[in-house]
Amino acid sequence: MTQIIYGIHPVEEALKAAHVRLQKIFISTEKPGQALQKIIDLATQKRVPTTLASGKQLEQMAGGSPHQNVVAIIGEIPYATLEEILSSWKREGTKALFLILDGIQDPQNFGAIIRTASACGVHGIIIPKDRAVGITPSVIKASAGAASIIPIARVVNITNTVEALKKEGIWIYGAAGEAEDLVFDLDFNIDLAVVIGAEGKGIRPLVKKNCDRLFSIPMKGPISSFNASVSAGMVLYEVMRQRSSYGKASEDKLFRR
Amino acid sequence: MTQIIYGIHPVEEALKAAHVRLQKIFISTEKPGQALQKIIDLATQKRVPTTLASGKQLEQMAGGSPHQNVVAIIGEIPYATLEEILSSWKREGTKALFLILDGIQDPQNFGAIIRTASACGVHGIIIPKDRAVGITPSVIKASAGAASIIPIARVVNITNTVEALKKEGIWIYGAAGEAEDLVFDLDFNIDLAVVIGAEGKGIRPLVKKNCDRLFSIPMKGPISSFNASVSAGMVLYEVMRQRSSYGKASEDKLFRR
Repeated sequence: MTQIIYGIHPVEEALKAAHVRLQKIFISTEKPGQALQKIIDLATQKRVPTTLASGKQLEQMAGGSPHQNVVAIIGEIPYATLEEILSSWKREGTKALFLILDGIQDPQNFGAIIRTASACGVHGIIIPKDRAVGITPSVIKASAGAASIIPIARVVNITNTVEALKKEGIWIYGAAGEAEDLVFDLDFNIDLAVVIGAEGKGIRPLVKKNCDRLFSIPMKGPISSFNASVSAGMVLYEVMRQRSSYGKASEDKLFRR
Repeated sequence: MTQIIYGIHPVEEALKAAHVRLQKIFISTEKPGQALQKIIDLATQKRVPTTLASGKQLEQMAGGSPHQNVVAIIGEIPYATLEEILSSWKREGTKALFLILDGIQDPQNFGAIIRTASACGVHGIIIPKDRAVGITPSVIKASAGAASIIPIARVVNITNTVEALKKEGIWIYGAAGEAEDLVFDLDFNIDLAVVIGAEGKGIRPLVKKNCDRLFSIPMKGPISSFNASVSAGMVLYEVMRQRSSYGKASEDKLFRR
């Protein structure tokens, strides 16, 4: 199954990503420039064929989304292993930030979470093999291409994975509506994996039991929960906020765009 | 056009809401209890007919979502006026929190934003009449019923509305990717309206010009924006966090659930 990704940065990152295979790149010459030239050079180097196309053709391929004059066709996005995710963190040398999704089933939610995770500097996402949506075409679309950038591991047993992460010195913090601790009262400036549960159901009991700490996001009024991708966004925002004000991340120019 | 809402709190709040008309309530007697009894009493008082149904019937009506043994059919949800939104704030006597959505077009995004806004204590949402999705069936569904709880005003001219809000002493802060100020560097503990722009396009130039301040959410890596409902969630989370630690809101028991 082939997929479409578009936009200068997503295509450039996909070209650089070791785990993604680009089949073809379509470039419109309506606005030639350095950024597109860099993609052509990278494509040549990686032996990915490049074809010129009209802006209109690219617009059709991208389904009307802003494509910045470049669209790429990619093969299936392979899952990463837990080891690959761990080494992507160790290579970067920053505080760990992993996301464990315990049973997200809606492709829109999963895609939006991948997009958020990528923009918040998450090192890797871990999902269970059963009762959860995988990397499907709708997920890739909803992720705005981020599914080809951030490594996603699919594991048989989340509890075992949690144990493996703990052995690496990573703390496991889970989002649970009933938790006494509020999200902004916790210190997230540690090597961390955040667990987000399934829509409507939350984290499964056994996984919850294995979390080092649980936290809730305060809520007002009769609506009893946030959309899963919104709560993931709030938690990742809080991690980003805390790490930024602790100094290290705020010195990172990339972080400030 | 009729709509379905479900769950004890959403149905109870819709029964209490002055602007929503419930046509019928279906209740399953499989788990009788105080909360359902309260809904029956409220329904009698408001002269809304109640019908008993099986859990299976409710499940079908709610499309598999958790219905807590109660489903209601509501008529069209009317838009609120700006005056109604302002008085809902003044009645509550807390710091103002309004959300101006400058052109959200995706029903999933609009629905998720309504749901988030309701759970973050937003007093009212303002949307433009043109080039934006209104309160449609898919929006109500994505809002998990919150569309019947939080007042939503649809105005012809956002810039005029911004002026009217300013006259009420409300500050207008807009989310804009290019802004130098970061969201967590601003003080949100003021009478406030937050402006969120359209997917991919952001806030329109004239509206942006009329904002008192602009702020950006920091981002890492090649993905150049968050999903609109995720960024709205991050901003409302930050408002909630700041107001909670300033003391007033944290004394509000509801706020802590």
